[in-house]
Amino acid sequence: MHTVLRSATREVVIGPDQPFCLIGERINPTGRSIFQQQLRDDDLSRIAIDVGQQVAGGASVLDVNMGVPLTDEADLLSRAVKMVQELTDLPLCIDSSVVEALEAGLAAYQGKALVNSVTGEQERLDEVLPLVARYGAAVIALPNEEDEIPDEPRKRLEIARKIIDVATGRYGIPISDIVVDPLAMPVGADTTLVVKTLETISLIRDEFGVNMTLGASNVSFGMPGRPVLGAAFLPMAMTHGLTSAIMDVRSPQLVEAVKAADLLLGNDEWGSAWIAAHRAKQRNG
Amino acid sequence: MHTVLRSATREVVIGPDQPFCLIGERINPTGRSIFQQQLRDDDLSRIAIDVGQQVAGGASVLDVNMGVPLTDEADLLSRAVKMVQELTDLPLCIDSSVVEALEAGLAAYQGKALVNSVTGEQERLDEVLPLVARYGAAVIALPNEEDEIPDEPRKRLEIARKIIDVATGRYGIPISDIVVDPLAMPVGADTTLVVKTLETISLIRDEFGVNMTLGASNVSFGMPGRPVLGAAFLPMAMTHGLTSAIMDVRSPQLVEAVKAADLLLGNDEWGSAWIAAHRAKQRNG
Repeated sequence: MHTVLRSATREVVIGPDQPFCLIGERINPTGRSIFQQQLRDDDLSRIAIDVGQQVAGGASVLDVNMGVPLTDEADLLSRAVKMVQELTDLPLCIDSSVVEALEAGLAAYQGKALVNSVTGEQERLDEVLPLVARYGAAVIALPNEEDEIPDEPRKRLEIARKIIDVATGRYGIPISDIVVDPLAMPVGADTTLVVKTLETISLIRDEFGVNMTLGASNVSFGMPGRPVLGAAFLPMAMTHGLTSAIMDVRSPQLVEAVKAADLLLGNDEWGSAWIAAHRAKQRNG
Repeated sequence: MHTVLRSATREVVIGPDQPFCLIGERINPTGRSIFQQQLRDDDLSRIAIDVGQQVAGGASVLDVNMGVPLTDEADLLSRAVKMVQELTDLPLCIDSSVVEALEAGLAAYQGKALVNSVTGEQERLDEVLPLVARYGAAVIALPNEEDEIPDEPRKRLEIARKIIDVATGRYGIPISDIVVDPLAMPVGADTTLVVKTLETISLIRDEFGVNMTLGASNVSFGMPGRPVLGAAFLPMAMTHGLTSAIMDVRSPQLVEAVKAADLLLGNDEWGSAWIAAHRAKQRNG
C-alpha cells in the first residue's frame, strides 16, 4: 500500500516497496530550552538551521511541532509551516496535541500533509479525523486510549482497527492515508517492550497492510550507546514491516543503517543508492 | 531449543533465549596468502594472534579451518585444534570440506565440538553424520545439494528437513545438535537474495525450532560499506530467528550491533551486559 504526501511541488511515497521514509524529528522544541525561549520571544530563526541540517541528513519529510507552554501554538505552528515551506520542498508532518494548532497548520500548508496524530480516544477521533478528511491529509494513528498504552500487541492491533474503521467508515479517509504508529517504548524501562513493538508491527502489516511509522529515539531512551541501539532497531523493525520513522536524521549512523536495510530488503535496485552514497562519502573525506 | 558446545572446561549454550553466539571466522587461511604460505612452511604461529584477537573481540566459539592446497589438511587441522585448545577455553567449530580432516580434528578435540558442515548430498550425509554421532558433536547443516544452492526458501526448508530426518532417524543425533545454516548470499549479486535468506530463517524457526548460524560476511561481499551492511543484517536476521553467526568478531561495529540486538530482543536482562560494555568502552577511552 502506498501513502502519498505532497508539498506544493514534490511528492513522497511511503510503502513497503519504497526506500524507508525518514521523517526528521528536529523541528520540535520539546526538551530544547533555548529553542523554547526563542519561540516564546517570537524568534523563529532556529528553524532554518534545523531544516538545513535535516535536508542535508537525508530527510524525506519534516515533522513540525511548536508545542511550547505559554504561547499561541496555533499561530506559531501556522507561521512555522509557512516558513519551512519557503525553505524546503519536502512534505511536512504537522504535529500537535492541540486540535486548533493542527487546524491552523493544515490551513497554512500547501500540499498533502501528514497529521501527527490521532489516538483511539473518542474525543480525539471526533476532533482530528474531520480535519484530516477536510484537508485531504494523511494521519498517524496511535493505538492507545484514555491514558492507557497497551503492552499487548493484539490490544494495539484492535485499537488500530477501531481507528481505521472510524476513519474509513465515518469520514471516508482512504486506508492508504492512515499510517499506524505501533508504539516504540524504551527498552531501558523493560527489556520485553521492543519485542512487543516488533510483534505489533508484524501483526498490523499482516492484518491491514498499512504503512507504519514510530518515534525511533524512544527505544534507546535512558540507555548509553543510543545511536548503536537505534541503528540495530530500525533494520529489525523494517524487516517486520515498518515503512517510516520519525527520527534524528542528523545521525549518520542511523541514516546509514536505514539505507543498508533498504539495500538488504531489496528496495535499492542494483544497490545504486548505496554505492552512490558511499562514493559521495569518499569524495567528501 | 538449546545447542550445547563444550571445550574441556567451558560450556556455551546456543538458543533463542540466549545472547547471540558469535563464532569467530578468522582461523581460516582462505583468501590469506601469507597465512597460507606460513601453514605450508609448517609455521602455525599466526594462529595465536588470531585466537587472541577473537577472544578480545568477544567470540563465544572459534571456527578452525586449515584448508590450504598442497598440505596434509588432516594433520594440520589436528595440530591446529590442539594448539587453539591450549590458547583458549572457548569451544571450537571444526571446519573442513575434507572428511578425513574433520575426523582428525574431532579426534584431537577435547569436549563437544561443532562440525562445519554437512550438506543434503547423499555422499556427505553418509560420510559426515557417522563422525558427528561417534564423537557426540553438533553439526552445521547446509541446505544445498549436488552443486545446487536453491534460491527458494521452501526448497531450502525441505533439504534441511531431509538432513534433520537422516541425522536424527538413522544416526540418533539429537535435533538440538543440528544447527541449520539458512545460506547467506551476497546482496551485490542479486538484491532479492537477502530477503530469501530472512524468509528461510523464519520458515526453519517455525518448522523445526532449531538453532541457526550463517557466514555473515557473505551478505556484503563485493559491496562498499561492508561493516554497516553487516551491522544492519545481523539484527534483522536475529529477529527472524538466527541464533549464531560465523563472523569477523574483530569488527566492533558488527559485535556492537549484535549486542544491541541482544538487548532489544530481551536477551540481555536489565541491559546489564550492554551497560557494562559501554562503561568498559568509556574507561578504555
